[in-house]
Amino acid sequence: MTVQEMIKTHPQPTSLDRDALLRCIDECLDCAATCTSCADACLGENDVQELVRCVRLNLDCADVCEATGRILTRQTAPDLRVVRASIEACAAACRACGDECARHAAHHEHCRLCAEACRRCDKACEDLLATIA
Amino acid sequence: MTVQEMIKTHPQPTSLDRDALLRCIDECLDCAATCTSCADACLGENDVQELVRCVRLNLDCADVCEATGRILTRQTAPDLRVVRASIEACAAACRACGDECARHAAHHEHCRLCAEACRRCDKACEDLLATIA
Amino acid sequence: MTVQEMIKTHPQPTSLDRDALLRCIDECLDCAATCTSCADACLGENDVQELVRCVRLNLDCADVCEATGRILTRQTAPDLRVVRASIEACAAACRACGDECARHAAHHEHCRLCAEACRRCDKACEDLLATIA
Amino acid sequence: MTVQEMIKTHPQPTSLDRDALLRCIDECLDCAATCTSCADACLGENDVQELVRCVRLNLDCADVCEATGRILTRQTAPDLRVVRASIEACAAACRACGDECARHAAHHEHCRLCAEACRRCDKACEDLLATIA
Repeated sequence: MTVQEMIKTHPQPTSLDRDALLRCIDECLDCAATCTSCADACLGENDVQELVRCVRLNLDCADVCEATGRILTRQTAPDLRVVRASIEACAAACRACGDECARHAAHHEHCRLCAEACRRCDKACEDLLATIA
Repeated sequence: MTVQEMIKTHPQPTSLDRDALLRCIDECLDCAATCTSCADACLGENDVQELVRCVRLNLDCADVCEATGRILTRQTAPDLRVVRASIEACAAACRACGDECARHAAHHEHCRLCAEACRRCDKACEDLLATIA
Repeated sequence: MTVQEMIKTHPQPTSLDRDALLRCIDECLDCAATCTSCADACLGENDVQELVRCVRLNLDCADVCEATGRILTRQTAPDLRVVRASIEACAAACRACGDECARHAAHHEHCRLCAEACRRCDKACEDLLATIA
Repeated sequence: MTVQEMIKTHPQPTSLDRDALLRCIDECLDCAATCTSCADACLGENDVQELVRCVRLNLDCADVCEATGRILTRQTAPDLRVVRASIEACAAACRACGDECARHAAHHEHCRLCAEACRRCDKACEDLLATIA
């Protein structure tokens, strides 16, 4: 995605580990879109009643991943406590949503793909957090 | 706002303290809109160069408050770890943005109003967190 | 909401009719939160299968109202074609969502309240558009 | 991105031209993140005062692209008037932002990259609109 190139042309170098940062931005954006799609695919299933918790956590996860992706994208004058707390919230949302999607992975391919996207984003968040602390 | 009435008509009662919840939703939505406005008002000032950090933290705070406001609004099948981590991220963003806005409050009325909105939202987050733990 | 006061302290006066603008911002923010809540309340109902289209249009309407509310809140250096197209998209989303919610208003109080919020926001959009053209 | 695979596993086939849809979703998400990054890079420049209109249109464009990307991602029970009005708003935002970024492309590489992302997204919107009408 273009955002990777953008950050390389930014007038102020990031204060974070650049590889871990770029990967985390990428996974946040991917996970946000995947969760939006999984919520919608669940709504279209005949057994939507069984997928209510999945839809709800998908919506939460999409919102947190999008906000975190925006915050991580910004390099100008960051506040590290805000950055850290956002990544922690993102990891928590990815874990909860990934666990719930995994429960439906055998029946719904979209839940299987979404569980994987959540796992990757959770890991990218933890890896980035490890470079900040 | 209508969302307050909406939550009272929800088919599933909230698992959280309802007064603290309703106040926190209200402050999140108010703070999000106020921060969006403060970022824009700062951009319109002649001394925008002095307000760069304020704009950046306003944008972060608006994004986190909006995501948290959405998550708190949802009552169906919540994950309390996600709820808690989101409120913590929101409080962190409100503190950082409120501190920065307060530095410009004497020169810019929009920063003074925004600092107050951030303080109220931070407090509403802390009060709601106290009822969850 | 504080955003109303914020716009009065903005360094650059709005180019739009201020009363129509302030009302439209207010209705966009109210409708966004109400639609987020209605989607969630529908998810919590026993007859969620009957409410799938309502949830979907609630989610669309919340997203468009939030984006439009942010754009209208910004007074610095607007592009009127962007402002106009956003308001038109918002009115379209409010009409579609309001119509669908109205179909469920007799059975679900949250749909009745949401249909009303959509109607008010649609009207505020049309009134503001009338002052731009 | 995973969202492309997700839409292929959706229980309900899209009513739109799938190639044009997938490309438009992709460009909306790319343009949203690029505009968020360009607004932030502009804020970090010494000549931020010259870039105020660019920041403002970047923020608008990011908000509209994100909302449109979400709406296009949803395949369940769409309302085509909402879909069409959202794509039109997105194209308008991309044109305005792309034109402004192009004015700064010679001085700022991030504006040059962002102008290109806006052009691609505008074109993907127009191509998708052509398949709906």
